[in-house]
Amino acid sequence: MDVYEKSLRLHAEKRGKFEVRSLIEVKDKESLSLAYTPGVAQPCREIAKDPSAAYLYTRKWNTVAVVSDGSAVLGLGNIGGLAGLPVMEGKSILFREFAGIDSIPIVLSGQDEDDIVRAVEMIAPSFGGINLEDICAPKCFAVERRLKEKLDIPVFHDDQHGTAIVVAAALMNALKLAQKQLASAKIVICGAGSAGIAICRLLLECGAGNITMVDRAGIVCEGDAALTDAQQEIAKLTNRARLRGTLADAVRGADVFIGVSAPRQLSRDMVAGMAERSIVFAMANPEPEIYPQEALEAGAYIVGTGRSDFPNQINNVLAFPGVFRGALDVRAKDISEGMKVAAARALAALVGEELSRECIIPSAFDKRVAPAVAAAVAEQAKKEGLARA
Amino acid sequence: MDVYEKSLRLHAEKRGKFEVRSLIEVKDKESLSLAYTPGVAQPCREIAKDPSAAYLYTRKWNTVAVVSDGSAVLGLGNIGGLAGLPVMEGKSILFREFAGIDSIPIVLSGQDEDDIVRAVEMIAPSFGGINLEDICAPKCFAVERRLKEKLDIPVFHDDQHGTAIVVAAALMNALKLAQKQLASAKIVICGAGSAGIAICRLLLECGAGNITMVDRAGIVCEGDAALTDAQQEIAKLTNRARLRGTLADAVRGADVFIGVSAPRQLSRDMVAGMAERSIVFAMANPEPEIYPQEALEAGAYIVGTGRSDFPNQINNVLAFPGVFRGALDVRAKDISEGMKVAAARALAALVGEELSRECIIPSAFDKRVAPAVAAAVAEQAKKEGLARA
Repeated sequence: MDVYEKSLRLHAEKRGKFEVRSLIEVKDKESLSLAYTPGVAQPCREIAKDPSAAYLYTRKWNTVAVVSDGSAVLGLGNIGGLAGLPVMEGKSILFREFAGIDSIPIVLSGQDEDDIVRAVEMIAPSFGGINLEDICAPKCFAVERRLKEKLDIPVFHDDQHGTAIVVAAALMNALKLAQKQLASAKIVICGAGSAGIAICRLLLECGAGNITMVDRAGIVCEGDAALTDAQQEIAKLTNRARLRGTLADAVRGADVFIGVSAPRQLSRDMVAGMAERSIVFAMANPEPEIYPQEALEAGAYIVGTGRSDFPNQINNVLAFPGVFRGALDVRAKDISEGMKVAAARALAALVGEELSRECIIPSAFDKRVAPAVAAAVAEQAKKEGLARA
Repeated sequence: MDVYEKSLRLHAEKRGKFEVRSLIEVKDKESLSLAYTPGVAQPCREIAKDPSAAYLYTRKWNTVAVVSDGSAVLGLGNIGGLAGLPVMEGKSILFREFAGIDSIPIVLSGQDEDDIVRAVEMIAPSFGGINLEDICAPKCFAVERRLKEKLDIPVFHDDQHGTAIVVAAALMNALKLAQKQLASAKIVICGAGSAGIAICRLLLECGAGNITMVDRAGIVCEGDAALTDAQQEIAKLTNRARLRGTLADAVRGADVFIGVSAPRQLSRDMVAGMAERSIVFAMANPEPEIYPQEALEAGAYIVGTGRSDFPNQINNVLAFPGVFRGALDVRAKDISEGMKVAAARALAALVGEELSRECIIPSAFDKRVAPAVAAAVAEQAKKEGLARA
């Protein structure tokens, strides 16, 4: 029985992955009158006077919605909100298991950008944060930007920023081992979708000085007519030499390859043509851009993938639970670029003395991860004046 | 320390009344690969093929959203969604405690009818049912009607129908004791808002033949220009004698007074002028239309209120948990008038041999209530072809 068959059986047995429990036993008139009418009128009155009291008298302080329109679910594509619900329930339980967050899966019946923004804005008062999930590019950029402007709670598209944080952390450690600098390393990002663009932005924020992005049509270059708005913006910040060409052209002499594209995009020859002590993160799922063994044989110095069955798993679960835990803990208004950088640095620092070519990032099950990321995120929020508690 | 102070302290201590728990422990790579990627792709694929599989592989089958715009919260009026959140969390834990339902409080940032309908429609795929709560009249009628048309899951405005079901049950038993018939009893409903109109509709459905409604401006009469659309509709079905006048005029000679209006609307004199063996349900909260002792002294035969500190508490919690349990159990498409009548009859029947003037309705904590109501609702859904499982 393979992992798919096993997973299906587990889902059928549990009939869903979460449950809502009561924190107050309602067993008699007294408890009913306190948890519900008439007593409940009092916290209502307090919140009506001062909206911030909602963080004291309700679960808002610890509740994150995982919202998806199902337009880009895993590698399955646009299967719609309902069919994406098992993923969102999964994400919700990871929030609980890794960071003690009460997370509610919300899948949407519509996929129009305006409808998504309006729906999330409407339901936002119930929540302390919004985790956007599996929304296709370029819609995801506009949805996130508009919601960040409208809402006073953190909004975070995990497919972009969760991935970017973990990649940045892994790259910091890999460059240390390779004795290279982020500012001067030649970095190629293959895949200019939501994850690729977010990785690029965060690496620039961290100080990267030489990034080239490659998409299906080749090297992304400022002025190309076929680029989306988000790609145009990123093109202005990358590929300063205005190179054009294929992925093979881009990776020639590169120090770092970061793949968030499709299976088997990177050949042995391409890896062989990279610089000395090259770093290859091949994160296409489930089949990477190149398998670790091949990349190492072709001369790569450090290899990471998105998979749990190889060393150096670059897994979102290392980031989003701690990021939201930290943001909720200080009631942050937003999750800023600075907070993401702080998360990446904290994650990289955790590896410590165990740092090696096969250990550039902590295990997904390292209990220290979420608290360390949370503490760094919370501290940075305070520094930036984004904390409200 | 009064109930309000006590409730406030309890809320501050618990910081919210619910929590989201995981049904699957994610402790290692194996469990992560089954609950989340890559295994989770398989239930997604199954639901993409057949949407009804969502009831097997996700928590949809047992999940009810408690949705409010906070426009009519308890007796507090329009305090907005956020300030209403303690009530919605309270409702959610009652769903859990009384019927084992996973219920999610969703409070809205906007109060426009179209916005509410669109937001609920957008988030509906996550849920097996929608409980609308504390939405003001007449907006609540339109919101509910439109959502019932749009959605294939049950939509139920508890302030209307929960109250109506319990009143109908209590009245069936009270009439039995008073040896009167629903078809011929003269019934006055004081308060033509959402609860009053819903009570009227359900009593008509149960066979009531003589209902007069009274609102602030006096007896509701077909053709009055000041009536809302919902009141116009109900006026056509009531007050067949086209009476006009005050509440005092309406209750003269009446067999039944049902109050869902405001404190102290019903005087001793009015009760004294009612028919022999009169029935008075004075349900304004927290202060009733008339206190039980006064009503009994003035000649009332049976008295009920909404309060837990007097006999015959007419409490919604007797209805909504069982109604949704029954609807979810058979995956009902809708909650029909017939299902509400079935719920009322089942609730009334539970009193059995204990029936007396001080016991016309079961206690809110009678464990038999939710299962009995659920069974009746489920059976009726099957009879009407509304069940899908």
